[in-house]
Amino acid sequence: MVDPKSVGLPDDHWRPTYEDIHELIRDIANKIRDEFHPDLMVAIGGGGFFPARVLRTFLKTQDQVDPKKKRNIPIQAIGLSLYEEVAGVSEEVIGKEVVRTQWLDSGSHGSPDKIKKDAGGLLGKNVLIVDEVDDSRTTLHYAYNELLKDVKESLASMSPEERASVPPTRFAIFVVHNKLGPKRAELPIIASPADDKIVDGVSTGVHYYAAETTPPVWIDFPWEQEDIAEHNRLSALARKHGLGAPSVP
Amino acid sequence: MVDPKSVGLPDDHWRPTYEDIHELIRDIANKIRDEFHPDLMVAIGGGGFFPARVLRTFLKTQDQVDPKKKRNIPIQAIGLSLYEEVAGVSEEVIGKEVVRTQWLDSGSHGSPDKIKKDAGGLLGKNVLIVDEVDDSRTTLHYAYNELLKDVKESLASMSPEERASVPPTRFAIFVVHNKLGPKRAELPIIASPADDKIVDGVSTGVHYYAAETTPPVWIDFPWEQEDIAEHNRLSALARKHGLGAPSVP
Repeated sequence: MVDPKSVGLPDDHWRPTYEDIHELIRDIANKIRDEFHPDLMVAIGGGGFFPARVLRTFLKTQDQVDPKKKRNIPIQAIGLSLYEEVAGVSEEVIGKEVVRTQWLDSGSHGSPDKIKKDAGGLLGKNVLIVDEVDDSRTTLHYAYNELLKDVKESLASMSPEERASVPPTRFAIFVVHNKLGPKRAELPIIASPADDKIVDGVSTGVHYYAAETTPPVWIDFPWEQEDIAEHNRLSALARKHGLGAPSVP
Repeated sequence: MVDPKSVGLPDDHWRPTYEDIHELIRDIANKIRDEFHPDLMVAIGGGGFFPARVLRTFLKTQDQVDPKKKRNIPIQAIGLSLYEEVAGVSEEVIGKEVVRTQWLDSGSHGSPDKIKKDAGGLLGKNVLIVDEVDDSRTTLHYAYNELLKDVKESLASMSPEERASVPPTRFAIFVVHNKLGPKRAELPIIASPADDKIVDGVSTGVHYYAAETTPPVWIDFPWEQEDIAEHNRLSALARKHGLGAPSVP
């Protein structure tokens, strides 16, 4: 393995370009559409904003009414931030570490009813949760469990007849990069959609899609760069020397 | 002016690359920070997601507690879509043309009180509304007026003493591209922050920032492209022949 510094790189960071990430998303979009058929995306802001916007381009579906038109999959944004992470925290603490800065739409003027009624639009849908990177898994764990809770609460508020009329709600997660290494939270990931088990109107598992699986290296995202030209130069230089994060099969 | 087709371009569309847009945002970020001092951004989804995320990188501020740390400006996302546009509609209809798919955070489980109490966090802040392009101005008009309404409603719900304790709320708009041409909605744009007039706790005008002002040409945004490599190739080709949309001074 070449020493990054010996070829003029400042460090061993992985530096994907905008185009790299755009194409990583393109390459997995068909698989997500054909396997999971997402009805809407929940983008975890700010990191999930760019992946969700690009993914929407590749997930466009034919309009039922006008076949010449393409329909966009709706995106709901939620805002989550991590408190400073402490190692070896308990399952209970993990949720508390996350700060909620925005949640699902609850109607024009914030009616608790909307979240309760249809879980902010998630009820009966195939919901794709989107973020940039799965590192400690803490944020994804929080997002999945809180969204699942909203769905279960709205189902619980229904009569058996109403509940029977609602299609099952399914969740999947899409991240651009899944970093290998110890995770600090668990997700009930199912290997294939065929393993999907619906209990009380909700899937008990969650599909998981990562456009790229990387070693636990530091990733410099293009949208975080003050000098994007230099970022792209270093990215090309690393590639030339076979450095950066090779995708793990 | 060279005919695009004569040099192998399919049309006269303007094709900015990710890097173009990243640098356009970089070039105006300091002006926005120094003039307007935004406290938070309201990103109009899906188009405003990418600009808001990149702008956040350039608007980072020193942390008061720990000067070694940089603080991110919070982003709230709102979801707006246009109905099919009809020419020459009345002011009254303009608002109705916009579909609201998500609004400001109204608390973990959607309490009307939060929007009423502090306008979903906007009250007393310098609020920067972010979108990709200002074409007909319809969406921006809707976003600005509805956010302003929320602020005025929360101010109206206060006692004179409470109201006196709240700093003024200011609005500014940032778009990557302002397309010249007829607008179908008006904004009370003020030429400079010096023209800012505060009435009843809210600025009567709105600052307006466009990273680039373009002729009314069609803009192909990179995040809408199925083939980003081809998009970049055509972008470079147009540039080589002095085509594409020159910034209007």
